[in-house]
Amino acid sequence: ADVKKIAVIAGDGIGPEVVAEAIKVMKSTEELFGLQFEFEHGLFGGIAIDEKGTPLPEDTLDMCQRADAVLLGAVGGPKWDNNTKELRPETGLLGIRKALGLFSNIRPAVVFDCLKEASTLKPEVLEGTDLIVVRELTGGIYFGEKFRREGEQGEEAVDTCVYNVHEVERIVRQAFDVAMKRSKRLASVDKANVLETSRLWRETVNRIAPEYPEVELEHVLVDNCAMQLLRRPASFDVIVTENMFGDILSDEAAMLTGSIGMLASASLGEGSYGLYEPVHGSAPDIAGQGIANPIATILSVALMYRLTFGYEEAANAIEAAVKQVLDEGHRTSDIAADRAQAISTTKMGDLIVDAL
Amino acid sequence: ADVKKIAVIAGDGIGPEVVAEAIKVMKSTEELFGLQFEFEHGLFGGIAIDEKGTPLPEDTLDMCQRADAVLLGAVGGPKWDNNTKELRPETGLLGIRKALGLFSNIRPAVVFDCLKEASTLKPEVLEGTDLIVVRELTGGIYFGEKFRREGEQGEEAVDTCVYNVHEVERIVRQAFDVAMKRSKRLASVDKANVLETSRLWRETVNRIAPEYPEVELEHVLVDNCAMQLLRRPASFDVIVTENMFGDILSDEAAMLTGSIGMLASASLGEGSYGLYEPVHGSAPDIAGQGIANPIATILSVALMYRLTFGYEEAANAIEAAVKQVLDEGHRTSDIAADRAQAISTTKMGDLIVDAL
Ligand SMILES: CC(C)[C@H](C(=O)O)[C@@H](O)C(=O)O
Ligand SMILES: CC(C)[C@H](C(=O)O)[C@@H](O)C(=O)O
Repeated sequence: ADVKKIAVIAGDGIGPEVVAEAIKVMKSTEELFGLQFEFEHGLFGGIAIDEKGTPLPEDTLDMCQRADAVLLGAVGGPKWDNNTKELRPETGLLGIRKALGLFSNIRPAVVFDCLKEASTLKPEVLEGTDLIVVRELTGGIYFGEKFRREGEQGEEAVDTCVYNVHEVERIVRQAFDVAMKRSKRLASVDKANVLETSRLWRETVNRIAPEYPEVELEHVLVDNCAMQLLRRPASFDVIVTENMFGDILSDEAAMLTGSIGMLASASLGEGSYGLYEPVHGSAPDIAGQGIANPIATILSVALMYRLTFGYEEAANAIEAAVKQVLDEGHRTSDIAADRAQAISTTKMGDLIVDAL
Repeated sequence: ADVKKIAVIAGDGIGPEVVAEAIKVMKSTEELFGLQFEFEHGLFGGIAIDEKGTPLPEDTLDMCQRADAVLLGAVGGPKWDNNTKELRPETGLLGIRKALGLFSNIRPAVVFDCLKEASTLKPEVLEGTDLIVVRELTGGIYFGEKFRREGEQGEEAVDTCVYNVHEVERIVRQAFDVAMKRSKRLASVDKANVLETSRLWRETVNRIAPEYPEVELEHVLVDNCAMQLLRRPASFDVIVTENMFGDILSDEAAMLTGSIGMLASASLGEGSYGLYEPVHGSAPDIAGQGIANPIATILSVALMYRLTFGYEEAANAIEAAVKQVLDEGHRTSDIAADRAQAISTTKMGDLIVDAL
């Protein structure tokens, strides 16, 4: 196979620890499945602020642009929380999404059998929950003009939420495509009874829907969706929504599975390029202790194999290996019933490699 | 006592049925507690669109402005869902909030003992959940400029989110005041890592906080709050947030209690004036059948007594009467374990009046 270039951004907190295990897994698949990777590492987030004075250094961005896919650990931490905007890790995150054109964030929310009890939802409600939130990632209120001004009643702040037809079309088409490969049910979430951008969103969804006659489409208002996710999580298949709503709903959906430490995500652009990262954060409180759970990052690699490279067999193998190791009862401390029995980050990585 | 003027907007769907019971309860408190009310009725929402060609007729608004408090049933229904903006019930709702200056929406989310099982959350997680969402109601992206325009990539839609210092101050002060009367814990929810309006919000909260040294304040990002509500609902006391986030989070909070059909809400302005309504919607599917649950509307009356009129004793009596009737096992069909045993809307109203 041709050599795939992977840009690695380990980031902050537990990022480097979990990314190391994911790379270990990738390397072990090289021989097994005849794959070949070339890894390049770059600074990003808090560590880049400390070492380079900016969360997204140019050479890191160049490296990502040269690569076929990006593997990201986690960014941020209290150390940088009170920095000015330009010197905050989040600014790097928004910057890299925009610069790489990653307009689509794919967040599967599934329930791991062994973690069913970890959810605060009743098991019978959760039963069968397996949904994907497709979140628009480079538009909306995140990227619109923002400023302060003097108003009639003192200082005021302004954020602008903008969507053009093209931006809505491409994310909606992608969501329909995802739905076609699954249970063919799509919930489009908006606030069309209040927002103009939501009305454009809904019109666009309705215009594209006839191209996918097999997909059962429902429009759900965002406030109602926040409720329905709680009431009937298993009834959702694919949810597509704009940036801000997606931020909120994808986190709600992740949390209700009880498996938030195990969930992977993909951020995609046009074509097959993608950035892959665990849903969980940088967990500064446990960083450097070698106890972080690398599974979400390892499952992000499976997503990368499937969505960017089409390595379906290797992707399935990784997922099966993870399942096997969990079924055998191995747990990092975050998911262990008995913490005394918990294994380390590297041990979990090793076991998954062995299972492969 | 002096006569209090109540503007009654029964609205659509089950609105008229539940409002009738609430008025029955109010009337029964007149003699018992030496109160006096004068009721005036106005058209609003869908029915006003049908009969007057606008969701918020001027005489209805005049009536509300002349009154000391407003009692609202519910508005909307599929019949008007595809109307143009000017002819939609929601437009009336936003219009009346703005016209009456109701900048604060108070939504208690409590768990009723008899409905604990109705929640999809595990009872042990829900245990002790008793929170209030204080939502800013007349600012933000709901009321900012909205329009379409031709952009470089075709048609685009724009919504503008604006907050001035004054708007943030008054809602935040009110939330601190509410917290002072409760467990003195306030969670301020924003997206300060992305939005300029959120940064203004957070600065303002931090500036006001020293005026309330007894209140324990935490800042929570909106995506995190959507998760924490699921993970540790009982740890929240008062949550204050801007309009759009409040719309989403108050519905999530209401749903997780399992008691959404029983929750009351108040929308307040400067002074003691307020609009009171159940959290549930107009439920067109069961309208006219006499089976709707009037309890949320009756509890909205208790809120009105307490917050607008200071009739603390009568407010407590209504709440106690509701509790007694529920404890005796009486249920409308929405909350009945055995629907065959369910009682009607009017019967529920009568029983609560009797219990008073
Ligand atoms: C850190 C923050 C800017 C970011 C977002 O809001 O997009 C995060 O919450 C996420 O979902 O990736
Ligand atoms: C109907 C709609 C405009 C309204 C809102 O979003 O404010 C409703 O959801 C509410 O919460 O009262």
